[in-house]
Amino acid sequence: MLKKIVKNVRDTMPLIHCITNYVTVNDCANILLALGGSPIMADDIKDAVPITEICKGLVINIGTLNERTIETMLAVGKRANELNHPVVLDPVGAGASPMRNETALRLLNEIRFDAIRGNMSEIKFLALGDKNTKGVDADLSDMITEDNIEQAVSFAKAFSKKTGAVIVITGATDIIAKEDTAYICENGTPHMSRITGTGCMLTCAVAAYICANRDNPLEAAASAVAAMGLCGQLAYQKIIEKDEGTGSLRTYIIDYMSKMSDEMLKAGEKLESR
Amino acid sequence: MLKKIVKNVRDTMPLIHCITNYVTVNDCANILLALGGSPIMADDIKDAVPITEICKGLVINIGTLNERTIETMLAVGKRANELNHPVVLDPVGAGASPMRNETALRLLNEIRFDAIRGNMSEIKFLALGDKNTKGVDADLSDMITEDNIEQAVSFAKAFSKKTGAVIVITGATDIIAKEDTAYICENGTPHMSRITGTGCMLTCAVAAYICANRDNPLEAAASAVAAMGLCGQLAYQKIIEKDEGTGSLRTYIIDYMSKMSDEMLKAGEKLESR
Amino acid sequence: MLKKIVKNVRDTMPLIHCITNYVTVNDCANILLALGGSPIMADDIKDAVPITEICKGLVINIGTLNERTIETMLAVGKRANELNHPVVLDPVGAGASPMRNETALRLLNEIRFDAIRGNMSEIKFLALGDKNTKGVDADLSDMITEDNIEQAVSFAKAFSKKTGAVIVITGATDIIAKEDTAYICENGTPHMSRITGTGCMLTCAVAAYICANRDNPLEAAASAVAAMGLCGQLAYQKIIEKDEGTGSLRTYIIDYMSKMSDEMLKAGEKLESR
Repeated sequence: MLKKIVKNVRDTMPLIHCITNYVTVNDCANILLALGGSPIMADDIKDAVPITEICKGLVINIGTLNERTIETMLAVGKRANELNHPVVLDPVGAGASPMRNETALRLLNEIRFDAIRGNMSEIKFLALGDKNTKGVDADLSDMITEDNIEQAVSFAKAFSKKTGAVIVITGATDIIAKEDTAYICENGTPHMSRITGTGCMLTCAVAAYICANRDNPLEAAASAVAAMGLCGQLAYQKIIEKDEGTGSLRTYIIDYMSKMSDEMLKAGEKLESR
Repeated sequence: MLKKIVKNVRDTMPLIHCITNYVTVNDCANILLALGGSPIMADDIKDAVPITEICKGLVINIGTLNERTIETMLAVGKRANELNHPVVLDPVGAGASPMRNETALRLLNEIRFDAIRGNMSEIKFLALGDKNTKGVDADLSDMITEDNIEQAVSFAKAFSKKTGAVIVITGATDIIAKEDTAYICENGTPHMSRITGTGCMLTCAVAAYICANRDNPLEAAASAVAAMGLCGQLAYQKIIEKDEGTGSLRTYIIDYMSKMSDEMLKAGEKLESR
Repeated sequence: MLKKIVKNVRDTMPLIHCITNYVTVNDCANILLALGGSPIMADDIKDAVPITEICKGLVINIGTLNERTIETMLAVGKRANELNHPVVLDPVGAGASPMRNETALRLLNEIRFDAIRGNMSEIKFLALGDKNTKGVDADLSDMITEDNIEQAVSFAKAFSKKTGAVIVITGATDIIAKEDTAYICENGTPHMSRITGTGCMLTCAVAAYICANRDNPLEAAASAVAAMGLCGQLAYQKIIEKDEGTGSLRTYIIDYMSKMSDEMLKAGEKLESR
């Protein structure tokens, strides 16, 4: 992996426009600040287009979407494409309702994404039209295991070729694929799914890392995945030592992200080429 | 009390749809995850009806309501009734503005609630049309004391008979009533009111506990009240020991909820039949 | 400084209506509770006008504004003016988009503010029409330094005379000005800008402090600035001692605010008349 991916984020402090859900928006802002970026949120179409023009990257997250914000997502995504800003999609709950399905597919058709981050159910819906989503969590039948990992990596590579985006599929094992190249990542802990927002935060991290490392989007996205997973592991280890719970887990994940460095990432990342 | 109420939640992981305010929505999601459930939030009417169909229960919380989301609340509530999902109402600020008053009463007329959770001012407004609400906190004249507890329990029982819902009135002493049966709960600490969202979080907990214990909604709701209060006590004890404040109090309440078990609840609950 | 400013807040528990962004709204609610006030949020015009009538003060924060909420801000601001409630403006991102610019100026024209709190880029936009805003952070060229502090204080005094409001400009050095009188404040730490919401929280604190100290708005606002900065310093010191990060920083800032007293403020404030 490249040696300065984290430092590049801290040095360039990319301003990331997030059109995102109101459940985890505060976590998204705080993770962006923690990793060295800067967040701004605007969702009125008249406000959001000019705001994107002063930014370096864009996150579109369809959790708690509504008719008004869907139009904003489309307009802002197109403007960000014109400006050649990295645009990252988080298709929260794709597969779970017709409105989310139609919106996710419409975004995919009308906007060019640099990365797409979701769980296997969400990504399968985007790629194949499968509707196994259990709300915002992956369906059990979509869990990545040792038995199906090769198949899952091939699927991610194929979907990347189709879309041109780095495909990030998160789960017990994470997959990060760009065309014929891919990484799997064994960082993270299942306990991260016992707090809300770890997926949304990762999507923001992917956007910031790609913004600061434009020539290496795959390595940038893989580093973001490993960094977030490593923060989760360290935070979980700490709550076990201190006999704490998921409230503290959330706080410590942001703590560790605010301390993340290339050295720390190199020492802890569990990325492997596939 | 039943011995497996908490375990039933962790075993069945009920997916709860929350149409709720944007002030405490993140806390609502995190408490649901902490207690073993799973949250999903959707408020556009086109999204929210199908989303409720994949859920097990519904919370309607009228804090930060608007004309658009009121229609969603009504449509989703009716669909959840058709599906026989437990539906829980949190009438935040009922009594404080005509729009909240009308909405709360309209919800009460058009939707069948399995439980209603509010402070005494809010519940009195629903039952009697009283308008003593001091914003989102109970009016001083509505405080439950030793002198008026019997009267308050009778009031809760009568309102339960009228609505068919478990009535949960929270305050220094909490009342949980279903028709002719009631509990009072002495768990909790007044310091819980120095952070936002403890009421909203409790409402979500009531919904998840009832979903996982459909045959015993009164005991489920009473257990949720006792569990939340116990978490508040333990969290308060911890911040006193560590000389911390209300920021940590919030974190620790979620911490303790993520550790809650039937054994822990049995050891700490202060529930009494009335 | 007056000796009872903090105590007056805790004694009167002012109920503050916040029309604010959904990114930091939870932090705004928790800081108001921590300092001894009480928050309520309503943004539908039909709900928000009556809600303001039961409150003691109003915060208007234009982050994540939209067409619907802009109309609410104007209507509620005017009603609060009629009721002689302190009204405080936080022009988040003024200078960054035409919609924010127009809204900020329209609010300034149509509503009488008791205080306006922003960074130098935002306040310069309001006063001069300068558009150097880097999203929601101050532009580097707008940093207050030893060399330009006198000029900056004069600017704040002049803008206060023009608007009648206490002007609060936050940065490495903070300026609090009312007509010909001003304070500078050296409390705080740059690390506060590595979490979201410290500005929004301060705006809420300014509102609550002014509400509880109507005869001394300048001293009240200066005390709020010093108190928030002191909380930031103490929180930062604590995370350094405990080797923690920005997640904990956020928690501890609220912790310290919940412990703030006039004695603690007197011992730690770094306010100076200018």
